Amino acid sequence: MSLLPLQPGSTIGILGGGQLGRMLALAAARLGFDVAVLTPRAYAPDAKVSKRTIVAAYTDTTALEELASISDVITFEFENVPASALEHLARLGKPVAPGPRALSETQDRVVEKCFLNAHGIETVAFAEVAAATDIAPALARIGAPALLKTRREGYDGKGQTWVRSASDAEGAFAAIGSKPAILEAKADFVREVSVIAARGRDGAVTCYPVGQNRHENGVLRTTLAPAPNHASVQASAEAIARRVLEGLDYVGVLGVELFELSDGRLLVNEVAPRVHNTGHWTMDAGLCDQFEQHIRAIAGWPLGATVPAFRVEMTNLLGPEVDVWPEIAAEPGARLHLYGKGEARVGRKMGHVNRLRPLSG
Amino acid sequence: MSLLPLQPGSTIGILGGGQLGRMLALAAARLGFDVAVLTPRAYAPDAKVSKRTIVAAYTDTTALEELASISDVITFEFENVPASALEHLARLGKPVAPGPRALSETQDRVVEKCFLNAHGIETVAFAEVAAATDIAPALARIGAPALLKTRREGYDGKGQTWVRSASDAEGAFAAIGSKPAILEAKADFVREVSVIAARGRDGAVTCYPVGQNRHENGVLRTTLAPAPNHASVQASAEAIARRVLEGLDYVGVLGVELFELSDGRLLVNEVAPRVHNTGHWTMDAGLCDQFEQHIRAIAGWPLGATVPAFRVEMTNLLGPEVDVWPEIAAEPGARLHLYGKGEARVGRKMGHVNRLRPLSG
Repeated sequence: MSLLPLQPGSTIGILGGGQLGRMLALAAARLGFDVAVLTPRAYAPDAKVSKRTIVAAYTDTTALEELASISDVITFEFENVPASALEHLARLGKPVAPGPRALSETQDRVVEKCFLNAHGIETVAFAEVAAATDIAPALARIGAPALLKTRREGYDGKGQTWVRSASDAEGAFAAIGSKPAILEAKADFVREVSVIAARGRDGAVTCYPVGQNRHENGVLRTTLAPAPNHASVQASAEAIARRVLEGLDYVGVLGVELFELSDGRLLVNEVAPRVHNTGHWTMDAGLCDQFEQHIRAIAGWPLGATVPAFRVEMTNLLGPEVDVWPEIAAEPGARLHLYGKGEARVGRKMGHVNRLRPLSG
Repeated sequence: MSLLPLQPGSTIGILGGGQLGRMLALAAARLGFDVAVLTPRAYAPDAKVSKRTIVAAYTDTTALEELASISDVITFEFENVPASALEHLARLGKPVAPGPRALSETQDRVVEKCFLNAHGIETVAFAEVAAATDIAPALARIGAPALLKTRREGYDGKGQTWVRSASDAEGAFAAIGSKPAILEAKADFVREVSVIAARGRDGAVTCYPVGQNRHENGVLRTTLAPAPNHASVQASAEAIARRVLEGLDYVGVLGVELFELSDGRLLVNEVAPRVHNTGHWTMDAGLCDQFEQHIRAIAGWPLGATVPAFRVEMTNLLGPEVDVWPEIAAEPGARLHLYGKGEARVGRKMGHVNRLRPLSG
């Protein structure tokens, strides 16, 4: 593609209207790119910092064609964009990165785990659940308790519930909306970690130091990166990320959530084919952050530096917690990021704070 | 003013359509603010990253009223905005920061030097030049060669010329457009340094470490900050900045260009009542950069940290020099900033690169 590397002044199209798109747009602007956004929502956080906004459904082919006509490269900030939208854009001859395969292999949790296992990457044991009656035999095989999740959609703990015994089957299946599901064995992990990795158009792969994550009610609360003793898991996390990136022929940034077991093994919990909440710490670590890295990758630029100058503790500000902004603003060494969202509904990701510490701390 | 500190989600109005406005808009977005821009130019760099753009002259009172109606606080990125525009906005009851005094004392070079001297701040010797015939007696008093500059406007070496002897008078005065002028004695400096300082709404003052600047043909080429041996000049530079800020009852970020003499004394060359090109190094120094600092100040937030984690060498990319972006993109430790400008005319500021070094380096 002779248009790559993409010249500054070119336009990057983004599917999706959330904070990830906003932070991508800000990173793109820093490198001299214009940004166009297609989002189903008016007043999207990224629309406010972009040159052009198209408000339409992802399935609106006229809107997709309009986006393609003004964009030089197109990406997405939201993994539940229909794969058909990306395929439509690709047919219009516009480079889309990551490609449709990144979605088709990761949008469905059963397909994703099969993809991972087929590439020699370990996951928890799992079973397909099409009906409530599938749950008892699945439990017998993978053990209880186990986590029942919808195969598609669902994020931040939505669309999932624990199943403790076969007698929970009917209730649990109803609780997730009686949708096609996956039952996942409970991982006996010592901690949750993640690796943010990038692959360029030339196949170059780079990873940030592994971060250590703490979730509450299924929602990310904090990431500490580099994780304490990250050296013990860095090489295996990177090997996993590389296999995923290469297996998907991926271009861009991707997040891999991992369970670290007591024997040091890593199981993949989930792959997110996009910039990732557990990579927000990179914004203030004195390196090329994950948003710029993604823009560099999809633009066919060389990937940037991933060696941090600080250890960073990232804390999400959920819903009304964002009201503590005056204290954070006054805190030395705290870097505040707010997403420009209106209503601070309970649990909604309103912003985050990165607290800088010495690397040796 | 009960609306301060300004809540995230509020709108900051910016007068001016250049790269400084763009970098201010990006910093404001990071803190969750919306941005509205008033600029005489369509396709302004900051319009592309702002929620709302009004294209109109700074003297268009209808446009000013529109900006005021959608903005909670208004600032400017360009010191040659007519002071009357700020006064009009202030009459509309919208907080404008810095206030009109920042412009009225600094837009005219004679007025500025009188202001500085009246506040006990040293400058080079100077003389008012209303006509070519004023030049010979001025030269006799302040010595030759001397620099003839228009009293107003002119930047990056435009509107100025050297006068070597009284016989140059007619030609020099014609060369600057026969406008009201100032003749400035040549400063016998060992280096050019600058200090970027901020004053909050509560009167708090903070300064970044002094940077060392190199100009070429009147245009900034590089800043190295902290300057080598900056400790020797830091205290006196800060004392000067504080007097200027307090003398102007200033709110926001301001740049002070200084000549360091061989005996260690500092003379003020120029005061810029805005974020400043010699402060661009702060964007990658692991602290609160000058753009966020300005937004914090005008929003009535506490000022941010000014202690760098790196030494940074900032180099401007002028005109076609920006074509080296692929090499810079591939350079480890180099952070590229491009301004989204179209045509790379010779000498036009297209972007800059910050190269990070260890603080001890």
